[in-house]
Amino acid sequence: MSSKGGFRIAIWGVGLIGGSLGMAWRRAGVAVEIVGIGRRPLDEAVRLGAIDRYVTDPAEALAWADVTVLCAPVLTIIEQAASYAQYLRPGAVVTDVGSTKYEIVRAWEAHLPDGVSFVGGHPLFGREVAGVEHASPDLPKGCRYVLTPGERATAKAVDQIRVLAEAAGGLIRVMSPSEHDARVAVASHLPQLVATALSGAALDADDRIGGVLDLAAGGFRDTTRVARSPLNLWNDIFLTNAVEIRSAILILRESLDDLERSLQREDRAAIARAFDRAHEAQRKLNG
Amino acid sequence: MSSKGGFRIAIWGVGLIGGSLGMAWRRAGVAVEIVGIGRRPLDEAVRLGAIDRYVTDPAEALAWADVTVLCAPVLTIIEQAASYAQYLRPGAVVTDVGSTKYEIVRAWEAHLPDGVSFVGGHPLFGREVAGVEHASPDLPKGCRYVLTPGERATAKAVDQIRVLAEAAGGLIRVMSPSEHDARVAVASHLPQLVATALSGAALDADDRIGGVLDLAAGGFRDTTRVARSPLNLWNDIFLTNAVEIRSAILILRESLDDLERSLQREDRAAIARAFDRAHEAQRKLNG
Repeated sequence: MSSKGGFRIAIWGVGLIGGSLGMAWRRAGVAVEIVGIGRRPLDEAVRLGAIDRYVTDPAEALAWADVTVLCAPVLTIIEQAASYAQYLRPGAVVTDVGSTKYEIVRAWEAHLPDGVSFVGGHPLFGREVAGVEHASPDLPKGCRYVLTPGERATAKAVDQIRVLAEAAGGLIRVMSPSEHDARVAVASHLPQLVATALSGAALDADDRIGGVLDLAAGGFRDTTRVARSPLNLWNDIFLTNAVEIRSAILILRESLDDLERSLQREDRAAIARAFDRAHEAQRKLNG
Repeated sequence: MSSKGGFRIAIWGVGLIGGSLGMAWRRAGVAVEIVGIGRRPLDEAVRLGAIDRYVTDPAEALAWADVTVLCAPVLTIIEQAASYAQYLRPGAVVTDVGSTKYEIVRAWEAHLPDGVSFVGGHPLFGREVAGVEHASPDLPKGCRYVLTPGERATAKAVDQIRVLAEAAGGLIRVMSPSEHDARVAVASHLPQLVATALSGAALDADDRIGGVLDLAAGGFRDTTRVARSPLNLWNDIFLTNAVEIRSAILILRESLDDLERSLQREDRAAIARAFDRAHEAQRKLNG
């Protein structure tokens, strides 16, 4: 924390997520200065109020910052550890916004200099569109904001990231990186795969018997909406959480097999139980 | 068609679907009179403009109508055939709005008096809420409206139902009852089962490791939204289209198994192909 009573924050990757967090932190007054890091000039991000200024040399910003926020895709964040962790200064804290946590936290903890803490972060907000031009300080408001402190992270470091996450409007959940990855495998990665598989299955059926997609109405649209997500966001997630995702697929397959058997047996009681369970899940959804 | 240039229409079951069609037909001026059939008085439906008047004796309305529209749940429509088809007069046409068609068309064709046509119908519109109080003449506008003529239906009868379906704003698709059932098994019934299974799987995971539903964000909500549908709507659908639905589940399972194997092998090319297929399906969606 600087003498002016705010953090010196470096945001590495000022897109939809990093940009929205920067805007929220500037509005909340928790930063003395926010510096963006980009390979190319970030004039648009400055103009939009996501950052105060930018540098193109990551080492310069990392050596300066109290808090560095890594906002690249997951595999890029992992790669950054070996080359750049060395530039962090004692007392600094690093966090990130990656959608999987175990591999990221492990990579960064392996390369941290003494006196630097890594506190993994995953703010669960987003949009179907990317880029700082779609960022808004309101996007993080009310989102679940998961913190997954590394084993070497100090309590003070965790508190600092908690303060920032709350300042952005996040509802804090602290858990281990593994717990996070197991939970989002079901809550986020599985729905993506299901939507992708269902869209593909419908296209297969459409190829074979025709007229299937023409009859797709609201139910199909809702259920497959996330299948429109671009692959580049998801490749890194799949590759860094494959074990948990495969477990999640197994749980779903059991659930689907049960339903299929119930249909085969015309077992109304079993179908009713499946609907009851689904309704209970929907009631338990937050918000 | 009466001498006044409009159909005498009987709507048996004036809820969300029947009520909306009634409102749309009155607005379009295609009915000389619309009579609702209900076990209880339908004053609310009259007040809302869904029907002109009502009767509580189905036989009376069926003997009077040019066109009878069956709007009960699927199994009820099937049961009505044996008891009530006899009251239809020569030249009359019967249609329905059930979500599956093969069993309905078969049951009614088996009981039709001479000179009466059955033209199955499935207007693909709806809401999460039931009841004539939620009906609107705008709901059918732009929906796919499937017609599945029975084998004994005359060309003139099909044309009459086509005129009504178009007057309500529907986009007409004519196909056999079996074709309809195979297509909606994938486009509508499978998404419902997937959403139900995914909700159940998430609740299972939540029971076991906790914190899963707390982290469910927009993707999970979209993908499972239809899991909130009440069972009573779906039981009849499942029981009258089980074979096609089970085939659809098999197609989805293959699609999901492929994805699971691709994750296991870290086969980026295969994952990319699955996303490409899903994106193609989304582009091919109507509207």
